Amino acid sequence: MTASGFDVLCIGNAIVDVIARVGEDFVSRHGLVKGSMNLIDEARAEQLYGDMGQAIEVSGGSAGNTAAGVASLGGRAAYFGKVKADQLGAIFRHDMRAQGVVFDTPAATEGPATARSFILVTPDSERTMNTYLGACVNFTTADVDRKVVEAAQVTYMEGYLWDRPEAKDAFKLAARIARAAGRKTSITLSDSFCVERHRDSFLELIRNDIDIVFANEAEINSLYQTRNFDDAVKAIGIDCPVAVVTRSEKGCVVVKGDEVHASPAHPVARVVDVTGAGDLFASGVLYGLTNGRSLSEAARLGSLAAAEVISHIGARPEVKLRAHAEMLGLL
Amino acid sequence: MTASGFDVLCIGNAIVDVIARVGEDFVSRHGLVKGSMNLIDEARAEQLYGDMGQAIEVSGGSAGNTAAGVASLGGRAAYFGKVKADQLGAIFRHDMRAQGVVFDTPAATEGPATARSFILVTPDSERTMNTYLGACVNFTTADVDRKVVEAAQVTYMEGYLWDRPEAKDAFKLAARIARAAGRKTSITLSDSFCVERHRDSFLELIRNDIDIVFANEAEINSLYQTRNFDDAVKAIGIDCPVAVVTRSEKGCVVVKGDEVHASPAHPVARVVDVTGAGDLFASGVLYGLTNGRSLSEAARLGSLAAAEVISHIGARPEVKLRAHAEMLGLL
Repeated sequence: MTASGFDVLCIGNAIVDVIARVGEDFVSRHGLVKGSMNLIDEARAEQLYGDMGQAIEVSGGSAGNTAAGVASLGGRAAYFGKVKADQLGAIFRHDMRAQGVVFDTPAATEGPATARSFILVTPDSERTMNTYLGACVNFTTADVDRKVVEAAQVTYMEGYLWDRPEAKDAFKLAARIARAAGRKTSITLSDSFCVERHRDSFLELIRNDIDIVFANEAEINSLYQTRNFDDAVKAIGIDCPVAVVTRSEKGCVVVKGDEVHASPAHPVARVVDVTGAGDLFASGVLYGLTNGRSLSEAARLGSLAAAEVISHIGARPEVKLRAHAEMLGLL
Repeated sequence: MTASGFDVLCIGNAIVDVIARVGEDFVSRHGLVKGSMNLIDEARAEQLYGDMGQAIEVSGGSAGNTAAGVASLGGRAAYFGKVKADQLGAIFRHDMRAQGVVFDTPAATEGPATARSFILVTPDSERTMNTYLGACVNFTTADVDRKVVEAAQVTYMEGYLWDRPEAKDAFKLAARIARAAGRKTSITLSDSFCVERHRDSFLELIRNDIDIVFANEAEINSLYQTRNFDDAVKAIGIDCPVAVVTRSEKGCVVVKGDEVHASPAHPVARVVDVTGAGDLFASGVLYGLTNGRSLSEAARLGSLAAAEVISHIGARPEVKLRAHAEMLGLL
């Protein structure tokens, strides 16, 4: 690891979140499945936005949130993702760099606008995402900067990339480069519907090319088509060196072969918006693992980061997570 | 008053707020005066933004916030202001309409981008604003829709408009139309530095063309070049039919000729960001006065609206103020 290296490279869809509180009726009126991420086209984006109340705009994107979290913990983070050269793209780039994330993927000068995800937060603090991928469709293998991949201890990618063939190719290229350089690879399964869409190729990938898998309970159950969590845990232990499975307020389970360690969730005074919980959990674990911490210490950092992000609106930390972790004696 | 009329028409600079928490050192490093609004050019905007941490974007603009507040209280609100036909302009328009505000000023298709105000919130919850006026410089008399002015019980305008000669002309035209139609006019003095810049013409305007003045303690003291609040109150009572002067946690003073009524501030559990306090106070007062409430009842609605907006980040209400006011028996 050289001084110019990275702890974690995150690759994902570069998205600006458009967050509004809505009533339960909004979700049913628009035929949405609560808690899920839906891909929408531009016409549907207009329709939903036209019916939404006043919103706030804040940089997001699953792997982007994770990169911001790694940097907020004091780690060296890089990011690949595609925005357009427009106002929202400039905001996204500013916010990545303002957190200390190295983000140099060139912006698209043509084609669709920077991606937006309309995130509807219901009174139960659950969130339903509606993502217009926009400029993300222009993310290709040409955006995989080999030197950055080779310089990163872990290359972490979101399963959502699988929804576009060009992004999937870019993901696979990055994984090959990382492993050829003796680096580790990591994936988050992103969403149970995403797993439904790509189950076979996710399984093939995990069995052959991934060192660390992140998933939640619904995603891993979907991956192995079971309702029995213990069966899913057993299966992932065989398929992959390390898996970290989150279970909301029940904390998480770290699986390493046939070793299974449960870790509690960090207490939260008031859950405001669960957006980014999984992303920030991953950032804590990845920071820990790339900075000499044990799996259980890493899981505690993940829980801490997730607890901070669900205590407010928006999917990126509002405080410097490093100071927070130091105060609690975790770093 | 017809069914198609408005309670309040608000006219102001259409601005998207870019809000970030900063340390006290940021304010001193950039030579800013805490609590003030500074007009900045594009180069300075780039410089400040480049040094700011991650931000959230949310529609703002002083009179825009007031219009949103009137609508949130259940009032009929209209707005004039100039955005560009760009992404931030679309966000601003969406957010106004999503609150129920009628906002039909055409967007500029050429010239500078939609205005942004970089709002730096220090740990004491005070805010320092740095505004790049952008497309607002294209707001002119052509944007004053006579029918809307004539249909509004009160036309309310921000003093900030005075910073651009074209906007000042538009302001004066709107005031003339309103008074010719037997309607009321209102102004907020906006900021003590704004008063410094325009003292003489503000005084002339208030003495001749304004029915209701909104100001805070610093602004009214600046207007009359005194450090004695009581002297300033006496002077404004002579110059203008009604003046409402806010004094932060000390509440407000309503001045009607030689009658002076003090009204307490609404309690706030935790002040998070004072941005919008004056704007929302004005919305409560204006809603009350245009809906048959007494001055003291109107002041209580103003205090309630201000208390809500300073309890969170951003200058527009996060909850439906009407429901809030009804719950407390104020409506």
